Amino acid sequence: MSQTKILLDESEIPTHWYNVVADMPNPPAPVLGPNGQPVTPDQLAAIFPEALIEQEVSSERWIEIPQPVREIYKLWRPSPLFRAHRLEKALGTPAKIYYKNEGVSPAGSHKPNSAVAQAYYNKEAGITRLTTETGAGQWGSSISLAGQMFELEVRVFMVKISYHQKPFRRSMMQTWGATVIPSPSDQTEAGRQILAADPDSNGSLGIAISEAVEEAAARKDTSYTLGSVLNHVLLHQSIIGLEAKKQFEKVGDYPDIIFAPCGGGSNFGGVTFPFLADKAAGKAVRLVAVEPGSCPTLTRGHYAYDFGDAVGLTPLTKMYTLGHDFMPPGIHAGGLRYHGDSALVSQLYHEKLIEAVAVDQLPTFEAGVLFAQCEGVIPAPESNHAIRACIDEALRCKASGEPKTLFFNLTGHGHFDMAAYDRYFAGELDDYPLPQEAIDRALANLPKI
Amino acid sequence: MSQTKILLDESEIPTHWYNVVADMPNPPAPVLGPNGQPVTPDQLAAIFPEALIEQEVSSERWIEIPQPVREIYKLWRPSPLFRAHRLEKALGTPAKIYYKNEGVSPAGSHKPNSAVAQAYYNKEAGITRLTTETGAGQWGSSISLAGQMFELEVRVFMVKISYHQKPFRRSMMQTWGATVIPSPSDQTEAGRQILAADPDSNGSLGIAISEAVEEAAARKDTSYTLGSVLNHVLLHQSIIGLEAKKQFEKVGDYPDIIFAPCGGGSNFGGVTFPFLADKAAGKAVRLVAVEPGSCPTLTRGHYAYDFGDAVGLTPLTKMYTLGHDFMPPGIHAGGLRYHGDSALVSQLYHEKLIEAVAVDQLPTFEAGVLFAQCEGVIPAPESNHAIRACIDEALRCKASGEPKTLFFNLTGHGHFDMAAYDRYFAGELDDYPLPQEAIDRALANLPKI
Repeated sequence: MSQTKILLDESEIPTHWYNVVADMPNPPAPVLGPNGQPVTPDQLAAIFPEALIEQEVSSERWIEIPQPVREIYKLWRPSPLFRAHRLEKALGTPAKIYYKNEGVSPAGSHKPNSAVAQAYYNKEAGITRLTTETGAGQWGSSISLAGQMFELEVRVFMVKISYHQKPFRRSMMQTWGATVIPSPSDQTEAGRQILAADPDSNGSLGIAISEAVEEAAARKDTSYTLGSVLNHVLLHQSIIGLEAKKQFEKVGDYPDIIFAPCGGGSNFGGVTFPFLADKAAGKAVRLVAVEPGSCPTLTRGHYAYDFGDAVGLTPLTKMYTLGHDFMPPGIHAGGLRYHGDSALVSQLYHEKLIEAVAVDQLPTFEAGVLFAQCEGVIPAPESNHAIRACIDEALRCKASGEPKTLFFNLTGHGHFDMAAYDRYFAGELDDYPLPQEAIDRALANLPKI
Repeated sequence: MSQTKILLDESEIPTHWYNVVADMPNPPAPVLGPNGQPVTPDQLAAIFPEALIEQEVSSERWIEIPQPVREIYKLWRPSPLFRAHRLEKALGTPAKIYYKNEGVSPAGSHKPNSAVAQAYYNKEAGITRLTTETGAGQWGSSISLAGQMFELEVRVFMVKISYHQKPFRRSMMQTWGATVIPSPSDQTEAGRQILAADPDSNGSLGIAISEAVEEAAARKDTSYTLGSVLNHVLLHQSIIGLEAKKQFEKVGDYPDIIFAPCGGGSNFGGVTFPFLADKAAGKAVRLVAVEPGSCPTLTRGHYAYDFGDAVGLTPLTKMYTLGHDFMPPGIHAGGLRYHGDSALVSQLYHEKLIEAVAVDQLPTFEAGVLFAQCEGVIPAPESNHAIRACIDEALRCKASGEPKTLFFNLTGHGHFDMAAYDRYFAGELDDYPLPQEAIDRALANLPKI
């Protein structure tokens, strides 16, 4: 049997991140301020350090990964590439299935790839405190880990209902030394206003963002951090695809199709963009973003300027969006419940360089359970989306007899999502079919610019 | 900086397990039946397949690892050996600290190393069903995973109070296709008797063992499986130490002292026994079993014949024991709450070839949190025992200026133990100091033979 686990030595960790902007047919659409004018780097300086702002607007193809970041990466990177022999056999497919396991990071997902970089640049800029918001806790725990590694104080505003419902992600953040604050809190003006109006508010990601940004903007020693969507986040995540390319080279193979779950776009961009460079050079590789049927940003949204948050505080980004006041149903893949998408992913989708497909919740859990039974690892609900789409393609290959090489990104493990699996086994999960009216309603409220 | 992560390729997975019996100064003391006579292999055949019984009594030094077992091992093995550079720096010690991360298995601990082997030999023997008991769920989830890999039905009798208190380990077992039965159940005579006397019984590990053994003994298609204590389990776990030796060779280093948590002895034996062979050949390596101060089997128990279970159903084993009716306090390191120990570990301790040390619960969590903050991984409470003892030695090295090479086994991650960390942060944990009278009382009830 051919190799199961394709490893790289830590000396093979890429030395540079890949910036897809260098290979895009058109420059990225500008981000606009409330006045409709492009946002300048200066305006971002209140909440981000200069090095990250430079990366946000850079069009350089390769950006060096600082040595201290690579040292931290060594704690879990390079992540292994697996050939899913047992899954192939269970499906009876002639396709070859590979997956990259990003769940091996201490926080259990790909998120620390950017968190470590963000913590490093903030430390270098003399920042001593980081703020962020978190819902389910994947990003909050990653920035807590990264802050600890660079001795930064980390303050995570955690949506209050999640704070109480998901105590274990909270304990994880506390173990890494972060302060976790149920949001809305009395520690910011935004939080106090909400509490005055509704003392029992359960909070929302929008409110938590407001609190985290307010605190960062108010203090010179404090920066705000974001775990997806922004260009510099996707840049840092390119480490996934760059490693994967080296790993495929080691076994003399190359993917025909790559599947990655897509919410804000950070893991999708991270794993696929380095392959997009090859596509630009003529390789026939297909890159497929997999999103929830109940939050189908790329497949059913509009390509338009919209706010990144629910309440309209952020600059306007040109992206695929379901409308900033679209409220995604309560699916368990919390990381994919986002009305918008990364500007880079959106533009590349608009220009037909990447594809997208939507899958429903129940089939994703079915796929995740089959994967766990074959390969061992229990995947995060977000990862189950990529697994579903990959299995569907493997079954098409079975029908057609095509021995395609398929590759998906296993973004994280499901150790903190077992309640979701419980509900799946108990028959309590829903697909939440999304009527067109719900999308139309939200799209009617797109900002007019 | 020297290497952080020392990897082996899957082609370097050892081809043979190491059996320490071949290198012991004296043959293992016989296991005795209720009549005081040595138990014969025949008597074990009702609940174990022949291949495992042969391994249980074998004195061959090397036993080949079947190819199908090695194929499954490839899903996570060889496990990485880490140099804990950041922990060394935080301690300011001249000592070098290495750890082997067994938490990378799908079940999150070293337990699948034996579970996979046991499932394989049962499958080969034509067995179609496995039973076992589980408390916290580490072993139950490992045998569920392994059973799934070899298409065996798995029935886990889970202590009823744990079944309700630890639903996520249960969901994990169900994801891998096992049936999890709260014990006491109405499915066995033993369970029905308990329920008749006390319908609200919370269950105990002793009761769950009785149910699992009864079902295995009653059916020809069914075997019983055990996750520690027995010789064949320690044999399978020797893969840990064998890999570690290759990894130390790669970096040209060798441990002066090895620390491993010790409950039933499976990971301790697994990681240290392959080094014991070197010790027999003159190497000055020290092997230290680390146990809880509140369940100090080796450090405060007697070396005597005793039952392996609480209720006196098992054969009698010569081992260090606190007495089979010793009830360990409710520490969170559930895997170390055992009144006895492996016969092999006990005999080697009695013959002074290995050492033991006891550490209290609070200092183990303190050590685990420091480790997590330095190295990222949040350890299981059992692993925190080894970390504590290793840190104590590193601090002694700091005082003396000795640059010793220390090595400990990180038996598993703590993703399913975050409630314990919560209680630690909340100041709710106890060290449970153990009065001598409690030990004396239990030892007074040792069986008279």
